Amino acid sequence: MESTAIPGYTFGTDQPTRSPVSEEDLERLKASVLFGSDDERALGLAGDVLEDQVEDVLDVWYDFVASHPHLVAYFSTPEGEPLDDYLARVRRRFGQWILDTCRRPYDRAWLDYQEEIALRHTRTKKNQTDNAPSVPHIPLRYMVAFVYPITATMRDFLAKKGHGPEEVEAMHQAWFKAVTLQVALWSEPYAREGDW
Amino acid sequence: MESTAIPGYTFGTDQPTRSPVSEEDLERLKASVLFGSDDERALGLAGDVLEDQVEDVLDVWYDFVASHPHLVAYFSTPEGEPLDDYLARVRRRFGQWILDTCRRPYDRAWLDYQEEIALRHTRTKKNQTDNAPSVPHIPLRYMVAFVYPITATMRDFLAKKGHGPEEVEAMHQAWFKAVTLQVALWSEPYAREGDW
Repeated sequence: MESTAIPGYTFGTDQPTRSPVSEEDLERLKASVLFGSDDERALGLAGDVLEDQVEDVLDVWYDFVASHPHLVAYFSTPEGEPLDDYLARVRRRFGQWILDTCRRPYDRAWLDYQEEIALRHTRTKKNQTDNAPSVPHIPLRYMVAFVYPITATMRDFLAKKGHGPEEVEAMHQAWFKAVTLQVALWSEPYAREGDW
Repeated sequence: MESTAIPGYTFGTDQPTRSPVSEEDLERLKASVLFGSDDERALGLAGDVLEDQVEDVLDVWYDFVASHPHLVAYFSTPEGEPLDDYLARVRRRFGQWILDTCRRPYDRAWLDYQEEIALRHTRTKKNQTDNAPSVPHIPLRYMVAFVYPITATMRDFLAKKGHGPEEVEAMHQAWFKAVTLQVALWSEPYAREGDW
């Protein structure tokens, strides 16, 4: 199936969100997480390793969310009823996000879509893409906190295709850097004016 | 030397900053980074492992900052002149922070001091503690980005005292969780009203 069939996945389209992040901002952020060309290569390999494991990764992440009422609340009605359709639509995009993190160049189109992803967690755009009757935003603290589970749970999947310990470590470090970099970008619309 | 001799280190004193974070918020954040009693034990061991390596860790972190002009700028005058006294005073507290992360209970006094640490990076309180003529704030994105270097560089130090791979891994994962948890707390004063 074409990736364009993923509901609400507007990467590279003429969706109206533009990132306020400059090329220089991005380069400085990459330097701050020590992200370089070795990491781009390692992520490329990770994309091949993860391609047929995306659903398994998502099972782990969704189980983690589902097992914590304070997290599943962000995919539920304000009364606490989980929204299966919303969870399912987000899941398709979350899967594509894994592969985009590994395979997309971190260029202007990517930056613009990072901002779109960011906004979809905030009061500005949460729920709109999926017409979901859910709570109005996800707090910034959980965006930051998710660096841990999204990073730590990935190692086993990266090790499942027979690569040596050094290759697995390189893929995992690159993944950790890429997740941290993106959470830093996603924090942009949460910050007070001039504080990002 | 008593830790009270560290300039500006006000942990547990009647310093006026109170954290707006509730016990429930903290418990939920801990759950979100999978932080539990095993991590507390592993951090206790990490404290013993790191105690006589604090200056070596700080050398690595300060070299990292010093080698990136966009980072050393936050310890410099607005004209870009590094402030040695400021760097030295912050360094004393940064060293104590390593040990506090390992050894302090994450209780109300700790939460209050986390908020004080947070504010010292923002326009509200940066420079005040050290009477430093530096730039007025550190952007949120670098607070988030630092999860990576502060975590990744720690592994070698944790492995230097002859512990087995499983113990080193447990200490490192606990450290990663503790850093992520604290950066989530430090993001509080950066967030727009109601968005943290």
